Amino acid sequence: MQWQDDIKAAEARITGHIVETPVLRSAAFGRDIALKLEQMQHTGSFKCRGAFNTLLAADVPEAGVVAASGGNHGAAVAFAASQLGHRARIFVPEIAGPAKIGLIQRTGAELTVVPGEYANALELAEREASESGAMQIHAYDAPLTVSGQGTVMSEWERQGLDADTVLIAVGGGGLIAGALAWLGGRRKVVAVEPMTSCALHAALEAGAPVDVAVSGEAANALGARRIGRICFDLAKDGGVESVRVPDGAIIEAQKALWHAHRQLVEPAGSTALAALMSGAYVPAPGERVAVLVCGGNIAPEPEIALR
Amino acid sequence: MQWQDDIKAAEARITGHIVETPVLRSAAFGRDIALKLEQMQHTGSFKCRGAFNTLLAADVPEAGVVAASGGNHGAAVAFAASQLGHRARIFVPEIAGPAKIGLIQRTGAELTVVPGEYANALELAEREASESGAMQIHAYDAPLTVSGQGTVMSEWERQGLDADTVLIAVGGGGLIAGALAWLGGRRKVVAVEPMTSCALHAALEAGAPVDVAVSGEAANALGARRIGRICFDLAKDGGVESVRVPDGAIIEAQKALWHAHRQLVEPAGSTALAALMSGAYVPAPGERVAVLVCGGNIAPEPEIALR
Repeated sequence: MQWQDDIKAAEARITGHIVETPVLRSAAFGRDIALKLEQMQHTGSFKCRGAFNTLLAADVPEAGVVAASGGNHGAAVAFAASQLGHRARIFVPEIAGPAKIGLIQRTGAELTVVPGEYANALELAEREASESGAMQIHAYDAPLTVSGQGTVMSEWERQGLDADTVLIAVGGGGLIAGALAWLGGRRKVVAVEPMTSCALHAALEAGAPVDVAVSGEAANALGARRIGRICFDLAKDGGVESVRVPDGAIIEAQKALWHAHRQLVEPAGSTALAALMSGAYVPAPGERVAVLVCGGNIAPEPEIALR
Repeated sequence: MQWQDDIKAAEARITGHIVETPVLRSAAFGRDIALKLEQMQHTGSFKCRGAFNTLLAADVPEAGVVAASGGNHGAAVAFAASQLGHRARIFVPEIAGPAKIGLIQRTGAELTVVPGEYANALELAEREASESGAMQIHAYDAPLTVSGQGTVMSEWERQGLDADTVLIAVGGGGLIAGALAWLGGRRKVVAVEPMTSCALHAALEAGAPVDVAVSGEAANALGARRIGRICFDLAKDGGVESVRVPDGAIIEAQKALWHAHRQLVEPAGSTALAALMSGAYVPAPGERVAVLVCGGNIAPEPEIALR
């Protein structure tokens, strides 16, 4: 029950700082499903929940906070720090892309774009934290981050989630760890990863977190080289079914979300739906399915580009 | 009570054919407001409600249906006809633009793109209907269209709408007529029109529907040359406060919806919010405000363009 208490505490802490994101029921994707539209969250992803939870629970030093991120976590930490009056220094890899980089810049945080991938940005962030005395906020493998992300699921249940099974995209595992921690086995959780970045799948096969190569359409959100230890421990005891989807299925699901409901999401945001649409996950007859849409940072100002 | 009964009948008729669109609470636009996200509706606007209501209530002839439209109504009629197995012939003006034209083409409807504006398309549609024996479905000035659109408001109240005042964008007036008809004065309704297309405002000033010139960013959705008679009759007795917004405010609100909540809408979809953000409508202290987001047909496949 420790996790459930932690997530309840997180929810009490971050209420008023975050968006209670709406739920859509849709029959447009081959069956009647519920979609939690978490890309409507501040800074366009669930990451704000963990960022606010961490900053509100901790004693933030004068030197502020440091975070490494594929982009979404960095934007969330920068936004939460700015809202709460702390300094923030963010490290992102080049593949973060203009949408996420622009988002971080607009918060006023100090930003360093690092050659390479997420793991390279993490190295620099750790060095910066130890030199400056700033607090480092891990993107996924920290208890306050995980309990913050767990509030997506506690909120969804409060909104009347009616599902046997929840599909969730996995990168470093912070979001799915929060969901597993909150649910405690009460619903089935399907972990969906791109074929091209599947750290959880590899860890479950190997029996321990191992390094994987990361690439592909969703790499700037799901491209963690190694799954978080907290996620692995929650997932390893059979609490999760792991499936993988090709990049093409992710793009098809992304198009389908626009065509059916005018929701423009980043590839990571359509990855969970891709498992259902592509048949990577096939529900049993009568199984009630829900899909978590987790991120929408695809472009800085698409409405201008589209004129 | 006739209108309320008609709208309840419409709701019973179209349930299962339409999307129950979610509501978002947001503090991102200067005050705490509720936003009904009707751009998530099939074909990207509320128009599907009136289209399904009309087709399900009527005895559709073998020759099928005909509609003239700035684009959204045409897409809705084409979609509903295709779902229900009827032929559809749609007339749109050139300014409908590629998003709306592509949408209609994908339904399999016969499409004619007409030089000029909505009124020119309407003329051709009327001729086609009288020659072919097909049923014409008016975009806004028909009782079944209006009672269909009224289900936006009955649905929103069932979802717990907590507001003194609802802001609604106006083109030909079908949507706001449905809202006025359902609410019967129980809440304040603010009619928001672009400075560049304001048929309701002009009619209220003149004491009768009059022709206006139409242009501007939202013209392919709100550019009706003359307000519908049903709308005018419901609005003229003080049931509505009429405000106008410049195109610049519409674009600012469009950007704000993307930045705050990753909702990419067409200019008509951000017009009601623009009145609040620009100060064209200033709520009284403590006044609880809700905003109807009505359309999202801005691009055929933005996720591809943005890669």
